[in-house]
Amino acid sequence: MLKDLKERVLEANLELERKKLVIYTWGNVSGIDRESGLVVIKPSGVSYQELTTEKMVVVDLEGNIVEGELNPSSDTATHLELYRNFSGIGTVVHTHSTAAVSWAQAGMGIPCSGTTHADHFHGEVPCTRMMTREEVEGDYERNTGTLIVECFRNRDYNYTPGVLVAGHGPFTWGKDPAEAVYNSVVLEEVARMALYTVQLSGGMKYLPEYILDKHFYRKHGENAYYGQK
Amino acid sequence: MLKDLKERVLEANLELERKKLVIYTWGNVSGIDRESGLVVIKPSGVSYQELTTEKMVVVDLEGNIVEGELNPSSDTATHLELYRNFSGIGTVVHTHSTAAVSWAQAGMGIPCSGTTHADHFHGEVPCTRMMTREEVEGDYERNTGTLIVECFRNRDYNYTPGVLVAGHGPFTWGKDPAEAVYNSVVLEEVARMALYTVQLSGGMKYLPEYILDKHFYRKHGENAYYGQK
Amino acid sequence: MLKDLKERVLEANLELERKKLVIYTWGNVSGIDRESGLVVIKPSGVSYQELTTEKMVVVDLEGNIVEGELNPSSDTATHLELYRNFSGIGTVVHTHSTAAVSWAQAGMGIPCSGTTHADHFHGEVPCTRMMTREEVEGDYERNTGTLIVECFRNRDYNYTPGVLVAGHGPFTWGKDPAEAVYNSVVLEEVARMALYTVQLSGGMKYLPEYILDKHFYRKHGENAYYGQK
Amino acid sequence: MLKDLKERVLEANLELERKKLVIYTWGNVSGIDRESGLVVIKPSGVSYQELTTEKMVVVDLEGNIVEGELNPSSDTATHLELYRNFSGIGTVVHTHSTAAVSWAQAGMGIPCSGTTHADHFHGEVPCTRMMTREEVEGDYERNTGTLIVECFRNRDYNYTPGVLVAGHGPFTWGKDPAEAVYNSVVLEEVARMALYTVQLSGGMKYLPEYILDKHFYRKHGENAYYGQK
Repeated sequence: MLKDLKERVLEANLELERKKLVIYTWGNVSGIDRESGLVVIKPSGVSYQELTTEKMVVVDLEGNIVEGELNPSSDTATHLELYRNFSGIGTVVHTHSTAAVSWAQAGMGIPCSGTTHADHFHGEVPCTRMMTREEVEGDYERNTGTLIVECFRNRDYNYTPGVLVAGHGPFTWGKDPAEAVYNSVVLEEVARMALYTVQLSGGMKYLPEYILDKHFYRKHGENAYYGQK
Repeated sequence: MLKDLKERVLEANLELERKKLVIYTWGNVSGIDRESGLVVIKPSGVSYQELTTEKMVVVDLEGNIVEGELNPSSDTATHLELYRNFSGIGTVVHTHSTAAVSWAQAGMGIPCSGTTHADHFHGEVPCTRMMTREEVEGDYERNTGTLIVECFRNRDYNYTPGVLVAGHGPFTWGKDPAEAVYNSVVLEEVARMALYTVQLSGGMKYLPEYILDKHFYRKHGENAYYGQK
Repeated sequence: MLKDLKERVLEANLELERKKLVIYTWGNVSGIDRESGLVVIKPSGVSYQELTTEKMVVVDLEGNIVEGELNPSSDTATHLELYRNFSGIGTVVHTHSTAAVSWAQAGMGIPCSGTTHADHFHGEVPCTRMMTREEVEGDYERNTGTLIVECFRNRDYNYTPGVLVAGHGPFTWGKDPAEAVYNSVVLEEVARMALYTVQLSGGMKYLPEYILDKHFYRKHGENAYYGQK
Repeated sequence: MLKDLKERVLEANLELERKKLVIYTWGNVSGIDRESGLVVIKPSGVSYQELTTEKMVVVDLEGNIVEGELNPSSDTATHLELYRNFSGIGTVVHTHSTAAVSWAQAGMGIPCSGTTHADHFHGEVPCTRMMTREEVEGDYERNTGTLIVECFRNRDYNYTPGVLVAGHGPFTWGKDPAEAVYNSVVLEEVARMALYTVQLSGGMKYLPEYILDKHFYRKHGENAYYGQK
């Protein structure tokens, strides 16, 4: 079932480790088959070395296990909430990458300080508010997803394919596993550059909006001219 | 004697280097066989490349050499003090990993600023007080252990499996060599994230206690639901 | 056509990745054949793994494609503007290397704080002013080049073979591809050292000019005595 | 001539690169044969990949080339000045390692903030004063050595086997090439830890002198008990 998607999700999970975004089991990638509404996700607490396509878990959008003998990632409910609300995405990635987590721990969104950022995220990568006791003690993982969705009420998730959950860490998404992992790598690099920028300038620096727009639309949308056709 | 334990302690010592927690001979792992009360520990000043199970030293809980031709780690008395006082632990690890040492040198405990930390340590990783002249000029290594034990008088060593010795560096522990080394790796990563968090926010950030509890107990204790059964 | 130059430009592009100055497709190297006035440049958005000499694009100094089936780098017009104005250079390199970008994002030139810097750049590596809306919404990439040229009106591009474009990142140049990539590596290392220096001293540090001159001219010009004849 | 010393000096030069203390040709190691008063040193500007024992240069203590066809390191006169004044040393190492250079650029000695430092350097690693114009425009490299010697007028070079030259970078020494390179690696690591410590505590932290003494003499002198006999 969903053999191709499983392979791509497996590969994306392994890529997290190769790109040094995760140690041990500290991250997970899922992918959705929009036609059937089924989601392939990493099993919980299994090391990347042990991962195989057979160990991948298939769940439906309500979180029922459809295939697989292992427990799905403990963050599954967060992924599902994002799939239910962001209809255009095909993959969700969660990591604990160092610089991005640091911004999340500081409770601060990453300002767009330069074109490296603007090439990939249309403005700030936002940080959610801190979850309330009720949200945490209730359906925690699902509420984490709801928190992210809330944070995008006035944002376009296609233009800002990532977020920091306050006190926790980054989630990114994309149309497929490779793109979503790419966004995780970019987010970590952009977070590190922004950290150094704050250290140098003693405060937040913001790229003028007209440069932000120029760079973002050079790579995205119908007038993009970066890359090959 | 204790062949299996020696192999696991050797492997854990080598893992310190692979995980970049130590350079040269700057760290040591020991393991205790609780039945016999004997401790296997790295020999002093021997590089990880030269280590073999035969070179491991076996001492009793009073520090008498029971087997082995080399001197045990100069930190042996610290390890023994921890084994005598923390009856539930099977391994002690000491490193000079960069970020953790930096917090120890600053004389500051690492606050729990996020869920990466909360997944592994139930609150602050404490920093001991600075040792007195009498403690240093007396039985120094044993007193280092006593200092750590003192620091845990009102803490649960199972819930906070690590500590910073002020002006010195980190010690961690666990039920077996692999777990204790894992805790050392986590401590270093958490120390680095907390350093960056301080740089961004200009001061300590504390995760609300209800999120700390949620994350810690998601992975520990009878209601844990992270990972596989 | 220009087979040798293509090979050297290809090799220089690959070297960017080996030296960890770029991830994915985040950098480009070009080289000019001054006799014919033709420029070899990396194709846009092609990963370093896929690059071959056949995929290199040849353009003239007005940007017309003379050979090659792929789009040239989206930064081509910037490179050309530099070739037209800095007649002594043979190669241009653009990267998004972490520390150099951080200075560019802060909008700050890198002061010469030590001899590592002085060995390679005769004084500050300047940061351009921020581009205006008109410059960005007009011929953006060409204007980026013009901005750099403007910044060197009172500077010698041979003595300072690199610049930071404000809010963007570093460009370097040199007489050939190998030298220009070397300058990019040096710039990143010097940027990192200067960042740490600011953190330690709480502000900019400037090497006395007589040491700056001594070191620069030890390696450059007719009285240089570093290296072999 | 001096075949064994050449091999050890060559190996030490290569080790600088393996330990990531140098890039390109940014460092050099020499060794002295005290019996003959001859010094083996790296040739100037030759990459570590190209180095062979045959390319090593032999000079006497006045700097005359005794053997070898290449120019010796441009820093040779600094090395010689140290050999002439520090009669107990057998090797000198100079690098531009990142964190140590940053302290040198800030013009600050590295305070002993912890036992990692105290295990190897008996107190602060000093930073020289800035050289005067006369010293720089005169016999610069030799004067660099004189500056270091001056800095040790009231210090024991055996107990503090390294120094930072203000605005420049670190020099270390030792009884043989392996030990001196070891000291360079330690200096870089200690410099990085001290940088992070300053960032955390907002100022210099000093280990109490009785702990400093305890750790230093645990590893050095007649009462040392670290390691094997």
